[in-house]
Amino acid sequence: MKISEYGEFKLIEKIARDTIYDSQRVVVGIGDDTAAEKVNPGHLLLSTCDALVDGVHFLLDKISPRQLGRKGVAVNLSDIAAMGGKPTSILITLALPRDTAVNWVEDLYVGIKEMCSLYKVNIMGGDMVSSPVVSISITALGEVKPENLIKRAGACVGDAVMVTGPLGDSGGGLEIIKRGLEKEPYWSKLVEKHLNPIPQVLEGQYLAKTGYVTSMNDISDGLASEIREISEASRVGIELWEERIPYSSLLLEAAERLTISPIKLALSGGEDYQLVFTCKSNRVKELMKSFTREFSRELYLIGEIKPAEYGIKLRSIDGQCKELLARGYNHFA
Amino acid sequence: MKISEYGEFKLIEKIARDTIYDSQRVVVGIGDDTAAEKVNPGHLLLSTCDALVDGVHFLLDKISPRQLGRKGVAVNLSDIAAMGGKPTSILITLALPRDTAVNWVEDLYVGIKEMCSLYKVNIMGGDMVSSPVVSISITALGEVKPENLIKRAGACVGDAVMVTGPLGDSGGGLEIIKRGLEKEPYWSKLVEKHLNPIPQVLEGQYLAKTGYVTSMNDISDGLASEIREISEASRVGIELWEERIPYSSLLLEAAERLTISPIKLALSGGEDYQLVFTCKSNRVKELMKSFTREFSRELYLIGEIKPAEYGIKLRSIDGQCKELLARGYNHFA
Repeated sequence: MKISEYGEFKLIEKIARDTIYDSQRVVVGIGDDTAAEKVNPGHLLLSTCDALVDGVHFLLDKISPRQLGRKGVAVNLSDIAAMGGKPTSILITLALPRDTAVNWVEDLYVGIKEMCSLYKVNIMGGDMVSSPVVSISITALGEVKPENLIKRAGACVGDAVMVTGPLGDSGGGLEIIKRGLEKEPYWSKLVEKHLNPIPQVLEGQYLAKTGYVTSMNDISDGLASEIREISEASRVGIELWEERIPYSSLLLEAAERLTISPIKLALSGGEDYQLVFTCKSNRVKELMKSFTREFSRELYLIGEIKPAEYGIKLRSIDGQCKELLARGYNHFA
Repeated sequence: MKISEYGEFKLIEKIARDTIYDSQRVVVGIGDDTAAEKVNPGHLLLSTCDALVDGVHFLLDKISPRQLGRKGVAVNLSDIAAMGGKPTSILITLALPRDTAVNWVEDLYVGIKEMCSLYKVNIMGGDMVSSPVVSISITALGEVKPENLIKRAGACVGDAVMVTGPLGDSGGGLEIIKRGLEKEPYWSKLVEKHLNPIPQVLEGQYLAKTGYVTSMNDISDGLASEIREISEASRVGIELWEERIPYSSLLLEAAERLTISPIKLALSGGEDYQLVFTCKSNRVKELMKSFTREFSRELYLIGEIKPAEYGIKLRSIDGQCKELLARGYNHFA
């Protein structure tokens, strides 16, 4: 049944159920002019918004509504994670054509609620508007103690550059979709990495609390673009070591069979939603050990902070250093 | 020049300037993964989002970008006002076609910033995405002391129903636009009421602080729909008095010359962004006096809260009571 037949108000009533995963915070949830919630004393309020538009950020026939719902939340929680923060609440603006199926919206909310429930993030509000194009625009709120706030600025010469996981998987998955191979079971795991990214929510908070992390960014637009932001904000140069950039065996296999370049995907592919951060150099070993103890996976050391005049360079496997020119995705190009 | 020629990043850099009007709160503004701000101890965090879509909420050729920017902010601040809150911050997601003129976006931001500067609301973040359809989706954040929070629930039998100003002006303005008369200078003031609504930000906070107000709503969808929400949330009935509903002389004139019905516009026209609220009956006179002293304008007593079984009725000028059936605007109908 279409929304236009089912009724907007009835649909909103339906999806507004079971939206609270941390009831301690909530004073007024969905259903008044605004939501009202308690804030933790002594914490800063974090806020961010990110929208996904059909035909630009996703293709309706390539992503399920449940995946889209999960992803819409994930990309926003990832930004909160990149500040060392704990996400607390989201607000969702859905723009939908009148003939959208009610089932589709319900499945979208299954995905949204899965991701929210995972991190105890309350759905505090929303707006549903008719539009010729499907888009999902989310604002995420979070909190962090002032001493744990990690900005892009803060990296110092000599700091280590590190990432929380293998890069390029999402870009590899997108490449497989672009080549129409996404239905082949062999590639499903890589495609899943693109369609169902996992934000590093607990990892970001953990890293921030160690006190060793000096700057951080989430990898939404590709490593090259994210380290450029750290470089600009911190007014430092960066040297990345090509041989140290971590890849999954899945991606290496895909790279060989499909002749795609892992380093290109890592640098410019985007949407990995791992965290890239800088760490005091004398704390790297300690941090790697404790992180592995906590999360049963590795951190990766991939480069070093240099003086600003050094610029941003990639030291390739043969030892040569080349300037890194890649930038983020430009929507309007 | 179009955005696609000018460059997305250059444009964002341009509009991200001068976005802070209360610098005391801001720890991290635009330009990191998320914004970070201080919150007032002992306050609740308020959050709301509202989107405006071309062809649905506005027509690009009937509203200037500056008006659209003001209105996009105003409709969100109005929701914060309706809780008795002080708006503190907004985040803006703009969806724009690639060939949108850079000038148009700059003018939009002139309007956004005018409204923000008026109430010292910081622009803390945003996202700009390409889309075939122009839309502006805003999240507003605010704060309120728990004792001043006014919900839709709270109205009690015997309470007075009141509004902060004349109704129907915005609906009248829209009617004039629909009839293609908006260029006639004679109607410009009424058209302005539709295109440039003023949220009752200070009024809402003032009313909440008196302690006499038991429930409140902003009039975005027409009086009938708003009092129905109060009735449902408070589980009470409501009697509205037709002869007491306030109109501007502008609207009465337009009503006569264009044969439109003021009561219909007040009940279902929407977008007046006045506040409708309920007040303890023995405090009405005191509140009216003090409000007039504070704001040099009047409050209007327009009805009374009845027991739930009474329903929602309009007592017409001839003394007859009829059930009020009108509901809010349904986007997907």
